[in-house]
Amino acid sequence: MTPRIVEVRQNVLRKNDELARSLRRRFDGAGVFVVSLVSSPGAGKTELLQRTLSEMRATKQVAALVGDLATDRDAQRLAQSGAPVRQITTGTVCHLDAQMVEGALDEWELAGLDVLFIENVGNLVCPASYDLGEHARVVLMAVTEGEDKPRKYPTIFNTADVALITKIDLADAVDFNRDDATASIHSVQATLPIIEVSARMPSGLTNWFGWLEAQMNQRAHAEAGHR
Amino acid sequence: MTPRIVEVRQNVLRKNDELARSLRRRFDGAGVFVVSLVSSPGAGKTELLQRTLSEMRATKQVAALVGDLATDRDAQRLAQSGAPVRQITTGTVCHLDAQMVEGALDEWELAGLDVLFIENVGNLVCPASYDLGEHARVVLMAVTEGEDKPRKYPTIFNTADVALITKIDLADAVDFNRDDATASIHSVQATLPIIEVSARMPSGLTNWFGWLEAQMNQRAHAEAGHR
Repeated sequence: MTPRIVEVRQNVLRKNDELARSLRRRFDGAGVFVVSLVSSPGAGKTELLQRTLSEMRATKQVAALVGDLATDRDAQRLAQSGAPVRQITTGTVCHLDAQMVEGALDEWELAGLDVLFIENVGNLVCPASYDLGEHARVVLMAVTEGEDKPRKYPTIFNTADVALITKIDLADAVDFNRDDATASIHSVQATLPIIEVSARMPSGLTNWFGWLEAQMNQRAHAEAGHR
Repeated sequence: MTPRIVEVRQNVLRKNDELARSLRRRFDGAGVFVVSLVSSPGAGKTELLQRTLSEMRATKQVAALVGDLATDRDAQRLAQSGAPVRQITTGTVCHLDAQMVEGALDEWELAGLDVLFIENVGNLVCPASYDLGEHARVVLMAVTEGEDKPRKYPTIFNTADVALITKIDLADAVDFNRDDATASIHSVQATLPIIEVSARMPSGLTNWFGWLEAQMNQRAHAEAGHR
């Protein structure tokens, strides 16, 4: 990369960070907990989110923004949950940024929401550098992708707040090595929580829901302390 | 994106295209057939390439360049085949470009090679726009990723010369729908050849080797016609 490109890129990232901070203040003010999901294409973000929206709707006001290059297929899948869903079409851009998120929030009544999920474009590289104003970033890796992916795509695992190992029902079929995967994740970020999930097994999402619940309780507790 | 970014990006792509054309002339002059591989992380590029290098070494001079963000793990895996392998570390850059390929070729005796494989960074977005001077681009998708990926990442499927559906041995375990996958691929590029492969099944790579052989024969034939 030429120096000029680097300079333009740093400028873009700095502006993104500023906008993300202002978004986070806006989310805080509205009392909405914002969770972003990142992974390779096909690791199971949309499936997880569809199940999560359906499950949480019973007790919480939930909504989702979903980024996609070209289609609204994910938005359609998520809308089946009955939760409000908005699509962000990125064209050829390989990640969401704070400006795209802000644009999608336009006229949306944030104060009425408890949780907003943001599903990023399927990509283990580009989304890592862009703060979206989220409170928690969730990185997913499927057992079918291979245990070495965290070492190979370290930035995204280093910026995440939890790692979900998805499609755990296929672990035997692909000779998934749990110890190798854990070592690979923790070589990047030593204390990153790891949760195994399966959208196909009856209680395959229990630990994920537990993690979300704990995050929300912690936030509510911290906010009560601030008052 | 601001106009300035778009302008810089177009400039970068134009320079890349010029360099890629000069690389392709260099490959043609040396009589080496160059094949690039692109896919999501974990779709099986390295496994396929490892098997391909091992198999082809018996009758051809083969070598590989492999792009990775952070590790030389893929290069190490490929080197087990005994073929010459060079690593390109891209840092945080989500794709290879022609300049990186040119740099890696430095002092390599191309005229002694029959086939050079270039394994791109695992990414279905960024590599699409960068010509590397290759003669053929191979896009891989695993049955575990979902049948809709070509529609969701159209540019990479539109610029490919063949699509490999990998991990076909897992098709039943994930209820893979062959008709849906084919329709998705052909909605992007109507005549793209599709080859199903499995690195686990005894004859799982036969059709892939057949395709490579046919490509090389066509090239040899075309070159003989030019003389």
